[in-house]
Amino acid sequence: MSIKKLLIAIFSLVFAVKSYSQEGYDLWLQYTKIEDTQLQDRYTNKIRGINILGESPTLEVSKNELKSAWKSFFGKELALKTSGNNLLVLATKEKLPKELQQKLEQDFDRINSEGFFIKNVTLEGDEVTLISGKTDVGVLYGSFRLLKEIQLHHDISNLAISDSPKIEKRVLNHWDNLDRTVERGYAGFSIWDWHLLPDLIKPEYIDYARANASIGINGTVLTNVNANSLVLTTQYIKKVKALAEVFRPYGIQVYLTARFSAPLESGDLQTADPLDEDVREWWKNKADEIYAEIPDFGGFLVKANSEGQPGPNNYDRSHVDGANMLAKAVAPHGGIVMWRAFVYSEDDPDDRAKQAYSEFVPFDGKFDDNVLVQVKNGPIDFQPREPFHPLFGAMPNTPLMMEFQITQEYLGFSSHLVFLPKLFEETLDTDTYTKGKNSTVAKVVDGTLSNKKLTGMAGVANIGNERNWTGHPFGQANWYGFGRLAWDPNLNSEKIAEDWLKMTFTNNGNFVDPVKKMMLESRETVVKYMTPLGLHHIMATGHHYGPGPWVDNLSRPDWNPVYYHKADSVGVGFDRTTSGSNALAQYANPISEKYNSPETTPEKFLLWFHHLPWDYKMKNGKNLWFNMATTFQEGVEEVEGMVKTWKQMEPYVDAERFEKVSMLLQIQLKEAKWWRDSCLAYFQQFSNMELPDAVPEPNHNLEYYKLLKFPFAPGIKPSWN
Amino acid sequence: MSIKKLLIAIFSLVFAVKSYSQEGYDLWLQYTKIEDTQLQDRYTNKIRGINILGESPTLEVSKNELKSAWKSFFGKELALKTSGNNLLVLATKEKLPKELQQKLEQDFDRINSEGFFIKNVTLEGDEVTLISGKTDVGVLYGSFRLLKEIQLHHDISNLAISDSPKIEKRVLNHWDNLDRTVERGYAGFSIWDWHLLPDLIKPEYIDYARANASIGINGTVLTNVNANSLVLTTQYIKKVKALAEVFRPYGIQVYLTARFSAPLESGDLQTADPLDEDVREWWKNKADEIYAEIPDFGGFLVKANSEGQPGPNNYDRSHVDGANMLAKAVAPHGGIVMWRAFVYSEDDPDDRAKQAYSEFVPFDGKFDDNVLVQVKNGPIDFQPREPFHPLFGAMPNTPLMMEFQITQEYLGFSSHLVFLPKLFEETLDTDTYTKGKNSTVAKVVDGTLSNKKLTGMAGVANIGNERNWTGHPFGQANWYGFGRLAWDPNLNSEKIAEDWLKMTFTNNGNFVDPVKKMMLESRETVVKYMTPLGLHHIMATGHHYGPGPWVDNLSRPDWNPVYYHKADSVGVGFDRTTSGSNALAQYANPISEKYNSPETTPEKFLLWFHHLPWDYKMKNGKNLWFNMATTFQEGVEEVEGMVKTWKQMEPYVDAERFEKVSMLLQIQLKEAKWWRDSCLAYFQQFSNMELPDAVPEPNHNLEYYKLLKFPFAPGIKPSWN
Repeated sequence: MSIKKLLIAIFSLVFAVKSYSQEGYDLWLQYTKIEDTQLQDRYTNKIRGINILGESPTLEVSKNELKSAWKSFFGKELALKTSGNNLLVLATKEKLPKELQQKLEQDFDRINSEGFFIKNVTLEGDEVTLISGKTDVGVLYGSFRLLKEIQLHHDISNLAISDSPKIEKRVLNHWDNLDRTVERGYAGFSIWDWHLLPDLIKPEYIDYARANASIGINGTVLTNVNANSLVLTTQYIKKVKALAEVFRPYGIQVYLTARFSAPLESGDLQTADPLDEDVREWWKNKADEIYAEIPDFGGFLVKANSEGQPGPNNYDRSHVDGANMLAKAVAPHGGIVMWRAFVYSEDDPDDRAKQAYSEFVPFDGKFDDNVLVQVKNGPIDFQPREPFHPLFGAMPNTPLMMEFQITQEYLGFSSHLVFLPKLFEETLDTDTYTKGKNSTVAKVVDGTLSNKKLTGMAGVANIGNERNWTGHPFGQANWYGFGRLAWDPNLNSEKIAEDWLKMTFTNNGNFVDPVKKMMLESRETVVKYMTPLGLHHIMATGHHYGPGPWVDNLSRPDWNPVYYHKADSVGVGFDRTTSGSNALAQYANPISEKYNSPETTPEKFLLWFHHLPWDYKMKNGKNLWFNMATTFQEGVEEVEGMVKTWKQMEPYVDAERFEKVSMLLQIQLKEAKWWRDSCLAYFQQFSNMELPDAVPEPNHNLEYYKLLKFPFAPGIKPSWN
Repeated sequence: MSIKKLLIAIFSLVFAVKSYSQEGYDLWLQYTKIEDTQLQDRYTNKIRGINILGESPTLEVSKNELKSAWKSFFGKELALKTSGNNLLVLATKEKLPKELQQKLEQDFDRINSEGFFIKNVTLEGDEVTLISGKTDVGVLYGSFRLLKEIQLHHDISNLAISDSPKIEKRVLNHWDNLDRTVERGYAGFSIWDWHLLPDLIKPEYIDYARANASIGINGTVLTNVNANSLVLTTQYIKKVKALAEVFRPYGIQVYLTARFSAPLESGDLQTADPLDEDVREWWKNKADEIYAEIPDFGGFLVKANSEGQPGPNNYDRSHVDGANMLAKAVAPHGGIVMWRAFVYSEDDPDDRAKQAYSEFVPFDGKFDDNVLVQVKNGPIDFQPREPFHPLFGAMPNTPLMMEFQITQEYLGFSSHLVFLPKLFEETLDTDTYTKGKNSTVAKVVDGTLSNKKLTGMAGVANIGNERNWTGHPFGQANWYGFGRLAWDPNLNSEKIAEDWLKMTFTNNGNFVDPVKKMMLESRETVVKYMTPLGLHHIMATGHHYGPGPWVDNLSRPDWNPVYYHKADSVGVGFDRTTSGSNALAQYANPISEKYNSPETTPEKFLLWFHHLPWDYKMKNGKNLWFNMATTFQEGVEEVEGMVKTWKQMEPYVDAERFEKVSMLLQIQLKEAKWWRDSCLAYFQQFSNMELPDAVPEPNHNLEYYKLLKFPFAPGIKPSWN
């Protein structure tokens, strides 16, 4: 083909993209037209109108969502009717006739305050589909559930659905700065347009709330944990209030990050000592001021004495002193404090993986009732794979909030397709053994293990002002999946993938089955091409874009990849057994014992816990070097497989999303090879062994990879470079 | 109404917005369905198919644009046909039968290489509508013109349109940084996603190209004039190449800003002295490298020795030395250099308004043929109103490129509705008298005054990654209008407003007439409430958001508002007459003489050229203070009028854009009052006179306004705060 013809072909294609534009803005709320007329009839005969008992902003948005979805599904109006058979009725318990309330007593007993049920009932002589709950927001969740049933083309003639969230605080953490940069954000910039708030309410804010409510997310921390105290000024509280008012009908509370030194930075005080009366009064007044504007304000998220952030330790006070001071300020208003346990001292020479546990376990039971200690899923920092954080199960008298990272800081940014619910599920399903067998992380988080009332799960958002919210079309699945798991941490990631695919793309099994498989495998794939066999934190400096196992010159030892892999001519890996840092001691038995020997350690965690010789013989009879090299290679090959799978999906996907995913998979493939080639070139210096036959020689020498520079990689402030 | 009911009402409204979502992404290329069936028939009978003679990427995108518009207008395909009556034929001259070429000789003679004509012709016996030109891009422009005729509901049965651009280089200047911040950008962040280039081609890039091509813009400078030399590295040239390939079929060349110190910063050389042979070789090699990848690369835009940017003066060389060195590097490839005349020295105590003229006039005729000197419309800096820049007409032997600012740095950011073509037109229509009467700025810029071949107009883009490109829906009109005026600087701004409104919203006169009136008046309105009577540069520091006439503490005197208004108890204004800085001497007669006396100076420029006592009597018999105060007040009242006008437009506009403009007008009104109140509170200290009855007392005292802080106002890098 001549260049000219090639260009023509490209532009035909590219233009087609425009013509059938589907940018993905509508997320999993596509409400795709039901083309099957039989199915259409079944739905529209079953529901011929809608009747809403009572009125409130939340019922109003429920009604509007249903009406607008109806138009989209069926091309017709969902009429408002006050009586007749085959209506959809929305009503909280108290709006139902007393008799019906009694009849439904069991249904109401089964759900909690945010729960709902959907079932056929007789209301004033009419046969109707009832969505009910104890609160308006329960009804809203039920409405979204009904819409999901239709999106999935399920039969709705005899619905008997009852559902309640298993976790109380289901919260997105936006690491969004007031200048609209987003720390570790790879989907453009912050959707919060602070400058034009409170006066300009963008439609995006409403659609953000709709999306979150549809999966049960009920809180959002608007600002970065590396906090700016300016957001606590009167000027910004007005802006926050405007967002809170948009979100309120959707059952979403706003939270802010509280910079611990705010009393100082405001110019009001000379100290931020949490035991100082003036400081305590300052925070009390600040909380009062916020709640006067935002009566349902959620509370504060705090990163204190971590990575340079100020905190109680600056005044020789403890995390308990700091957290409880803030907790007392918000308690009268029903607010909470989410206090992060992500701490590791620059002075403490001990294994970084151990420090949060060492510091926080002694505080168990000392936090106020409205404090949640927020713990990352693993003891280091959102790696492609980590063992669960040893704090889970180790603080039975403290409510622990799970912190997952939805944004892919260490997992290829927004250009790698990685289905994270698989990662989340792995952590949640892991048995901590802290109260004997079946003491899973999920049970710690949902409070059932130690009978905790206050429970929570946080996800660091991957949302930005990209036209499709998340950059990668499949990044939406991670937002979606986080919400689903926050609602029910025992949910199966396969089910999540399937629901998401059907709601976002199509119900066609020719598409759903292979793509679901690809999604479910994608997390293991990224582990293979980035950090196989328990390797971790070998990303490049600062931006964490791409490999940097060679980095050894950063100011803090525990920021250097070489700290984590400890490769030398003898071997590789971090000895966290009794012969090493003994981080294993922080885990309950049988984990601590079993993992103390490499032979009984799952190979996926081998180098996390052990420093092993390059010729260490693994279960497949091959040595460590061979396995490391072939695992990197497998990762690359699996991405090649993803490219192939996706290529076959063209008939089922709109051109715009098809093209975008195709291009992104090519980036992922290129970068998977970069990881493989550079890491193997680096580690081969130490192993001093040949590459296995199946593994190609790196394209470049090690020096080439070391010299690559990406000063404007996204997710960090330029000034940090 | 109870709060609850109010909230319900708000959410009904807000949800309606969603249901009829019209975010404005499609700009003026809405191709709204033609509802009138008679009109529809007339169009589809006149054009029953399309025949394209020849093939090229540009013809391909022309065809695709027509086909996709057809679907949108008429709901049907525009079929490809090779013969028959009533076809639309796209062909360059050379593809037409020789006989027809001869018959159309006059038509071809009348147009230039980018021009086109549309007319009925007989082709191989068939009666067809022909769009032709000498080049593919001429045909593309003609295609967009035909679509515009349909958008405007014009009769196309007997088209006889012939049009050519009057200016050669019609270029957007993106002040976009490599970290995606945009200097003076108020529409989100840069649309260039450098990190994912060259591998991810976003649909936005194509739609950006379509929009520009539709108005004849044929060049884009991708990077900020405050330049980063990294964009000249091989790594980034590959990214630039990817964009160039997207834009090429649309007739758009890419340009880059050249940081003058790049040879140093690359690490290659120890100097950037433009007369150093190694430096000259470095730039030659760099140009060769770029052109090897991008054969139609446009060239360089340079801001040198201005506001801290490096330049030839650092080596005691002149602007001519610097510009010509770069010009020689790109000349072999047909490239150009756009060298900015925006210079004012921090050491030169002379009136800043005079410095560019003083420095550049001596260089007249000394620049190489492929250098355009790029001159801002006024001598200070993109103020709401300035007299034209005295360089226009003063360098008859040098091609001068006009630089307008489309982004509203000094005009209310993206939240004020200001129709800038009115401002552009005012400058272009002004008579410089440099070659006697009727030596307009337009004639300088289009080259006709001094017979210049190389001509150009630049507009500093207001484009960002907001969902509607420009933030304010009416900001799109400024991008559109710039393009139209770059094509024909004699165009009338009223015509531009009317075309834009019809293409962007509706042809309904009930909407077009009042909104056009509002647009045309909007520029005078902003002058009134910000800088009436020739006041200028009294904006707040750094971000330029809101008023700051009191600012007097900046490091450079000519950065302080007090430098520009010189208010004291005696009077106000900058004396630029013979008794003052004599900047007037830089203008030709009769301007220089006429403006030397306040009585014969247009009152709109009064305080630009004169320092006058507060009780100076103006033409209306009232004193200066009275006029200043009432003009501020008029500005506010006119915004109130805009609010009223827009409110009546609700029936004619989709809910989303209606709501957004409504909210933005409220911001504009609030800020107009802020301007009025704070400026009058400030100047009243000096005038020592009462406010006229018609002018309300400020809401706050002066101290309040002075203390307002906006550390995260958009458009500047946070680190600049």
